[in-house]
Amino acid sequence: MPISTVPGGVTAAQGFTAAGAHCGIRKNADKKDLCLIFSSVPCTAAAVYTENLVKAAPLAVAQRHLQNGAARAVLVNSGNANACAPGGEEAAIRSCKAAASALGIGPGDVVVASTGVIGVPLPVQAIENAVPALARALSASGGDDAAEAIMTTDLVPKTYAVRFELGGKPVTLGGMAKGSGMIHPNMATLLSFVTTDAAISAEALQTALRASARVTYNRISVDGDTSTNDMNLVLASGLAGNPEITGPGPDYDAFLSALNAVNGHLAREIARDGEGATKLVTCRVSGARDEDTAAHLARGVIASSLVKTAMFGADANWGRVLCAMGYANAPFDPQGVDIAFASAAGEVQVCASGAGLAFDEAKAKAILSQPEVDILCTLREGGGRAEAFGCDLSYDYVKINGDYRT
Amino acid sequence: MPISTVPGGVTAAQGFTAAGAHCGIRKNADKKDLCLIFSSVPCTAAAVYTENLVKAAPLAVAQRHLQNGAARAVLVNSGNANACAPGGEEAAIRSCKAAASALGIGPGDVVVASTGVIGVPLPVQAIENAVPALARALSASGGDDAAEAIMTTDLVPKTYAVRFELGGKPVTLGGMAKGSGMIHPNMATLLSFVTTDAAISAEALQTALRASARVTYNRISVDGDTSTNDMNLVLASGLAGNPEITGPGPDYDAFLSALNAVNGHLAREIARDGEGATKLVTCRVSGARDEDTAAHLARGVIASSLVKTAMFGADANWGRVLCAMGYANAPFDPQGVDIAFASAAGEVQVCASGAGLAFDEAKAKAILSQPEVDILCTLREGGGRAEAFGCDLSYDYVKINGDYRT
Repeated sequence: MPISTVPGGVTAAQGFTAAGAHCGIRKNADKKDLCLIFSSVPCTAAAVYTENLVKAAPLAVAQRHLQNGAARAVLVNSGNANACAPGGEEAAIRSCKAAASALGIGPGDVVVASTGVIGVPLPVQAIENAVPALARALSASGGDDAAEAIMTTDLVPKTYAVRFELGGKPVTLGGMAKGSGMIHPNMATLLSFVTTDAAISAEALQTALRASARVTYNRISVDGDTSTNDMNLVLASGLAGNPEITGPGPDYDAFLSALNAVNGHLAREIARDGEGATKLVTCRVSGARDEDTAAHLARGVIASSLVKTAMFGADANWGRVLCAMGYANAPFDPQGVDIAFASAAGEVQVCASGAGLAFDEAKAKAILSQPEVDILCTLREGGGRAEAFGCDLSYDYVKINGDYRT
Repeated sequence: MPISTVPGGVTAAQGFTAAGAHCGIRKNADKKDLCLIFSSVPCTAAAVYTENLVKAAPLAVAQRHLQNGAARAVLVNSGNANACAPGGEEAAIRSCKAAASALGIGPGDVVVASTGVIGVPLPVQAIENAVPALARALSASGGDDAAEAIMTTDLVPKTYAVRFELGGKPVTLGGMAKGSGMIHPNMATLLSFVTTDAAISAEALQTALRASARVTYNRISVDGDTSTNDMNLVLASGLAGNPEITGPGPDYDAFLSALNAVNGHLAREIARDGEGATKLVTCRVSGARDEDTAAHLARGVIASSLVKTAMFGADANWGRVLCAMGYANAPFDPQGVDIAFASAAGEVQVCASGAGLAFDEAKAKAILSQPEVDILCTLREGGGRAEAFGCDLSYDYVKINGDYRT
């Protein structure tokens, strides 16, 4: 059984329910700002977090609660990052207690996360008031409401789930994510929550998550700003009944493939929905001396403001691509680089061996005017290849961020 | 005699003449695109260059010509970067030969530089045709024309000169620079040319230039993109008649102060005139464990797209400042950071010990609406302090760069 897509997001896997609601952190009563994910049985759990030195309060609490590699519930609010504000850690602890009490579990089994404005105290009373009703509203079809509740400047909710097989048992793995600005993840990213009914040890789960984040979330950039709140969490209920994965082997590989499919999809959706973005831009580097070099070069190109504005203007200004590779802090021979642009409208090579080619400007414009554009950089130094995902830089990015707080 | 400002830019110091003209690289015949600087006597010379792995062809030629620490002329074109295009090095060599022949000096005494679009072959014939008339037009009042000829998306020419004293002799040091986009210098920057009549050995000049670039050009950022063409050159004619500076001492210190004054002024003018900029933003970090840490933090703040858009919107979103410090790859304690915004309209503290303060939003808006805004970050870890200079990120940055080539 190959990997197939299924609906449901974080409630696709057996044992998981979710709900989303408006609790009052946001002024607009139509905008959900709180969600809860719950597992009917204890789960193994793994997480990766932002490497920003400035960490939001809920990350410290979540890290403590996940030290034993187990969890059963996730409580997430949008509208307030609970970062750099007085009483942040106490507010995060109170949120966990409220959820635990409503769910009849221990506070240490609750993971808490926040996203929104930095520096404003979290109105924790609003969360405490809303949690009992949220717990009653938990349902196996609540994945969409939960995904909606964690959105900030996101234009669309982001969910994805897949089904595959482990030891003869069908296994489901699904997730949701948010992220639109302050997106330049390092280790973890933004907020992303994945659930699965696979049976997998906490240690194997953590290893798989680290490996997956490296090639998915850590390969995207919207604006070069690494957030204070990034977190990627996976809960595994074991209800699929597969032989527990405890280390390397074919089952681990199959699980990692499925995890990469979900995390990769969510990461690309985040890039596509980057603040003000009009298109998804993918940079594919091949022929580098190793994968790490290829990844550095690809992400350097994706993060360049000048490349991003050129993509917005559908301008085949490939010199900016080569220039961005040049300052990406990765070794390569500029004289050995070929560059092409590609999309559903075709492909055009613009640079060979580090020097410009004459090319059809009208065709290049048509290629770059598509909603999905690839920048292809081919080196001749080895077998290293990597992709990075980003978006263009538009007037709307400036508009959205020129006055975010009001 | 303290340092005083004088007019004249690169022709302020004794022995230097300059001229600027339109040679045809740019389509618009009203836009000067070629300039020449000449010294009546041999000069010691020093330069620093971009650290981008992708280097424009003229940099290689300039580096060879400056290996002996001597030069007499500088030829610079705008409108074409002579980077990543076939025949670039040959075109740079031919440019030097044309200038040398018109000036009656050796080609090895000519430094060549280019700025403009990447990847298009340099129309070197246009330069060769124009150089004889340019040499005849050289004048001691030509500094302004030269500064105009190196502009690309710059809105204003950038020149500055100072007079000070060495060994009882008045000494003049003046320069010109260009730079508006692709500005995130590393080691050298953009294009900046400084002339002085001080007597100083090539070795001492190189030492002084490296020290100066570190605290001036390497402390600015417009868009995080490190150019392929960055170059900062100093020519010293010795005509002031001061005892030659050959190493450390009070005269070296006085010279370095003057060089910092000119380079610092030009660097700030480049930041102020950043593409699409509506204001000059300065981040001053103090109390860091050392100067290097302070510089990393300050430049991290200045380079953040989210801080820059908030500055454009006059939005006191200080959380983005602390967040940017957090991913600047420099050690500090987030709990020990105070943040304030200041300008001609006053000062407002917004964060104490890493947590938000209640503050007067209307006052903050008024402070951030000024054309020069300071972001003050105070740590409690030592005596390290540094400033970094940048600008806001506006709709016009996107407009200018969405279709730069057409």
